[in-house]
Amino acid sequence: MNTPQQIAEIFERHLSLINMPDEPQRLYAPIRYSLAEGGKRMRPVLAMLAYNIYADDIQRVLPAAVAIEVFHNFTLLHDDIMDNAAVRRGRESVFAKWGSNVAILSGDVMMIEAYRHLQGVEAKYLPSVFERFNAMAAQVCEGQQYDMDFEIQSKVAVAEYMNMIELKTAALLAGSVVIGATLAGADEEDLHKLNKFAIEVGLAFQLQDDLLDSYGDEQLGKKIGGDILEGKKTYLMIISLSHATEEQREVLRSTHLRTDITDEQKIAAVKEIYDAVGARQMTEQQISVRISRALAILDTLSVPQSRLEYMRSYVESLVGRKK
Amino acid sequence: MNTPQQIAEIFERHLSLINMPDEPQRLYAPIRYSLAEGGKRMRPVLAMLAYNIYADDIQRVLPAAVAIEVFHNFTLLHDDIMDNAAVRRGRESVFAKWGSNVAILSGDVMMIEAYRHLQGVEAKYLPSVFERFNAMAAQVCEGQQYDMDFEIQSKVAVAEYMNMIELKTAALLAGSVVIGATLAGADEEDLHKLNKFAIEVGLAFQLQDDLLDSYGDEQLGKKIGGDILEGKKTYLMIISLSHATEEQREVLRSTHLRTDITDEQKIAAVKEIYDAVGARQMTEQQISVRISRALAILDTLSVPQSRLEYMRSYVESLVGRKK
Repeated sequence: MNTPQQIAEIFERHLSLINMPDEPQRLYAPIRYSLAEGGKRMRPVLAMLAYNIYADDIQRVLPAAVAIEVFHNFTLLHDDIMDNAAVRRGRESVFAKWGSNVAILSGDVMMIEAYRHLQGVEAKYLPSVFERFNAMAAQVCEGQQYDMDFEIQSKVAVAEYMNMIELKTAALLAGSVVIGATLAGADEEDLHKLNKFAIEVGLAFQLQDDLLDSYGDEQLGKKIGGDILEGKKTYLMIISLSHATEEQREVLRSTHLRTDITDEQKIAAVKEIYDAVGARQMTEQQISVRISRALAILDTLSVPQSRLEYMRSYVESLVGRKK
Repeated sequence: MNTPQQIAEIFERHLSLINMPDEPQRLYAPIRYSLAEGGKRMRPVLAMLAYNIYADDIQRVLPAAVAIEVFHNFTLLHDDIMDNAAVRRGRESVFAKWGSNVAILSGDVMMIEAYRHLQGVEAKYLPSVFERFNAMAAQVCEGQQYDMDFEIQSKVAVAEYMNMIELKTAALLAGSVVIGATLAGADEEDLHKLNKFAIEVGLAFQLQDDLLDSYGDEQLGKKIGGDILEGKKTYLMIISLSHATEEQREVLRSTHLRTDITDEQKIAAVKEIYDAVGARQMTEQQISVRISRALAILDTLSVPQSRLEYMRSYVESLVGRKK
């Protein structure tokens, strides 16, 4: 077994050795660019940790882990076009650097690249892994569509929001975990449990992400309040709308559109209502419930507790329970 | 065995029975829209004709044939965004009807749909068909990138152009034929020959397409001269540039940019030079050579001549040799 840290290093080393064609240059350069310095590698690490619960020869999960990471980065590349986002992980987005046509087509070939890596899956597992991968990929797109729909929708129910993030964020984490465990020979019952486990983790992770955007640590280099300034319908916003007075609701809905106050004042005005209705506590509560539920599911797997240690600590670190 | 006509009907019926999710509506409606009334279905028909050379139970090739057709339509959907094209097959393009964000994301999920249909391929053929499908898909994107690169490139050699259309057009036809024959159990040698055969067919088909844009029959409802007005680097243009005097070259390069003459005059000015250098005849000659070469390869396959009749007549019909 490997620690999450070791796993991330194994993955990074493997990824750095992957060859891609040089030509056409404007097609493949953006792919290399977006895979380099690529964030936490959370999805491949989850796939590899899930594999490691059942088996030790972790090399066998690498092709699928790469496929998932490449697919994830493809979605970011296309999301940045749709969201008109100029910055990704502190650098220019592909869209900003090369323009939208290059971003569309490089993204397309990046999705195909993801499938090419899936070719490395052993033939006996290929049909089931392929099916799982496709289902997960479609769910991510469905989630992104609902997220865009919400922008022009006046009311979004909490249940609708949870369904959206289950598709947009949690499905990919669940797919990663299930594919990793499948390749290690886990049985159907464990796969079913792992799926539920990872959905809970994914929901908690997304809520945590929403929370950090409004209550994160500026010292970590991230600007606070971006979601508020965009008027994004995050969990904090939706749950606040559902608990607010009519007067507070009006503030929540219109503050980001005001031109007579500064950004800092807008953020303060919205957070005042978040605090008044207890949105932060409710979100933290949700995260805590989801993670506890996830860890409880983990305990019911058909393996000795010692095999679960690293997955447990990794999941806790994702939502800041541990470093 | 089935005639090309019967095969097209079997395919169309099968396609019409395919279910897709209803929600999110803005994600799946454009896919349904773009698959309906979808042109000649040339690629699935080729896959099915290739299957039929070796085996009769044509139902077995349908999942792969659908995957290829859905993939092809996905490329059109994204190409229309990149080319800013408002019309596709006489109707509004998805891009024009729903906007570019919807076209990007529906296109993405359409590519995933293509892969989902590939799940229907028998497990024993899945690894090789999957690999072929991925290679073909990447080639199509590479071809599209070169095509876009050519727009801003002052000189394009004939060989560069042929390489581009081999990737953008012929690769998909070759993939269709090879996947169809693979599923019918064709051996490696025949697959290799069929690949070469279909590349020639694809090149001839693309040259024919270029030719029809300048010399087609207006009565067929297609506007003549669109490529000339856009200043597109087609085979006719590239071969004319390579045979023209310096003075003629200047006319070829600049006519589409002029604002002092009508579209009809622009088209006439360019076609006058095409005619002077014999570009039409050279293109027809190329098409004829490619098709003869393709048909000669077909004759060397390890099957009785009677199995090849429908493929032969279909290919001839594609370039107008027969109705």
